[in-house]
Amino acid sequence: MKVRLGPVERLFPMPCVLVVGGSIDEADVLTAAWVNVVSSTPPTIVMGLRKTRHTLELMTRQGDFTVNVPDTELAAQVDYCGIVSGRTEDKFAATGLTLIPATLVNAPLIKECPYNIECRITQQVEVGEYVVVFGEIVECHADRRVLRKGTTLAEMDELDPLIYCAGVREYRGLGPKLHDAYKIGNRFRKEKLDE
Amino acid sequence: MKVRLGPVERLFPMPCVLVVGGSIDEADVLTAAWVNVVSSTPPTIVMGLRKTRHTLELMTRQGDFTVNVPDTELAAQVDYCGIVSGRTEDKFAATGLTLIPATLVNAPLIKECPYNIECRITQQVEVGEYVVVFGEIVECHADRRVLRKGTTLAEMDELDPLIYCAGVREYRGLGPKLHDAYKIGNRFRKEKLDE
Repeated sequence: MKVRLGPVERLFPMPCVLVVGGSIDEADVLTAAWVNVVSSTPPTIVMGLRKTRHTLELMTRQGDFTVNVPDTELAAQVDYCGIVSGRTEDKFAATGLTLIPATLVNAPLIKECPYNIECRITQQVEVGEYVVVFGEIVECHADRRVLRKGTTLAEMDELDPLIYCAGVREYRGLGPKLHDAYKIGNRFRKEKLDE
Repeated sequence: MKVRLGPVERLFPMPCVLVVGGSIDEADVLTAAWVNVVSSTPPTIVMGLRKTRHTLELMTRQGDFTVNVPDTELAAQVDYCGIVSGRTEDKFAATGLTLIPATLVNAPLIKECPYNIECRITQQVEVGEYVVVFGEIVECHADRRVLRKGTTLAEMDELDPLIYCAGVREYRGLGPKLHDAYKIGNRFRKEKLDE
């Protein structure tokens, strides 16, 4: 039995990342759940941000930003960064989050986040009170401890990314691994063809 | 210790949804992880799709699509829909997924998915071999059993949304609730102010 809910802006689940704009001397950070990859040629992230955000001002002025994936241990700091404005409070002083230089963009990385993405803004598209920022991914970093040995693959149980659940407004982590993608579907297909 | 990974198209975690284009008589479905909300005015979803996708052809011809959120029980069917092309295989016959009419758009919903979103395409932006489709959310539906009583809020333990983890290519579900968003950050802020 389906219930009509009206046009609500929810999808399940959402990531929950810290986006940094500005320079290491004058940076601000915001919390974003409306963000994802959209292309691999070139690797590109999009993000929907309210036009009035202070961090967006810094991002646009400079033409770059970083996306920093926090683990579940950072939930309080991440939530705080989503609640207050960098115009009135120094979020780095309050949270103790540490800025370190990126390699290819001017916007710094957050050291405490185990996965970091450097982006250059390629375009911005207005949607109502929001702007959709397109950022080309130019470099990524991870803490060595979260990487599968000898690869650039992040192990999920080590990365432990924070997850946002819209509507009920919950923070969660990942559950255990259930299946291998690109394998379980092939097995399903073979079983169907054998029927 | 940070390790440089190069410009890889990964963010953690990603949703994993079934996107339907076409009509109830001629529909196709694809699996998408590169999708998220980007605006609430109007409520808008964006999605990055390879230009050659058959479902995209149907979506573009008709100007609408639906996003259907599967639970973890549907992982094999979802993975299958991401591996094969609707040009050569009938994905609905193979998976047993049932199409039911939407209310405001022509593209149908998938009954077995506990959460469904109806979208009208508002614009498309090319990024390399991909197109970023902007869809205005015009209606949403959920199975009554996943809703918090008397509200339009989906309970996460009931919805049990499928999650895709890029790189390691894993399907996972949500872990248990850790914190309330907009509360833990306020508590953190008060503690800081009291220091």
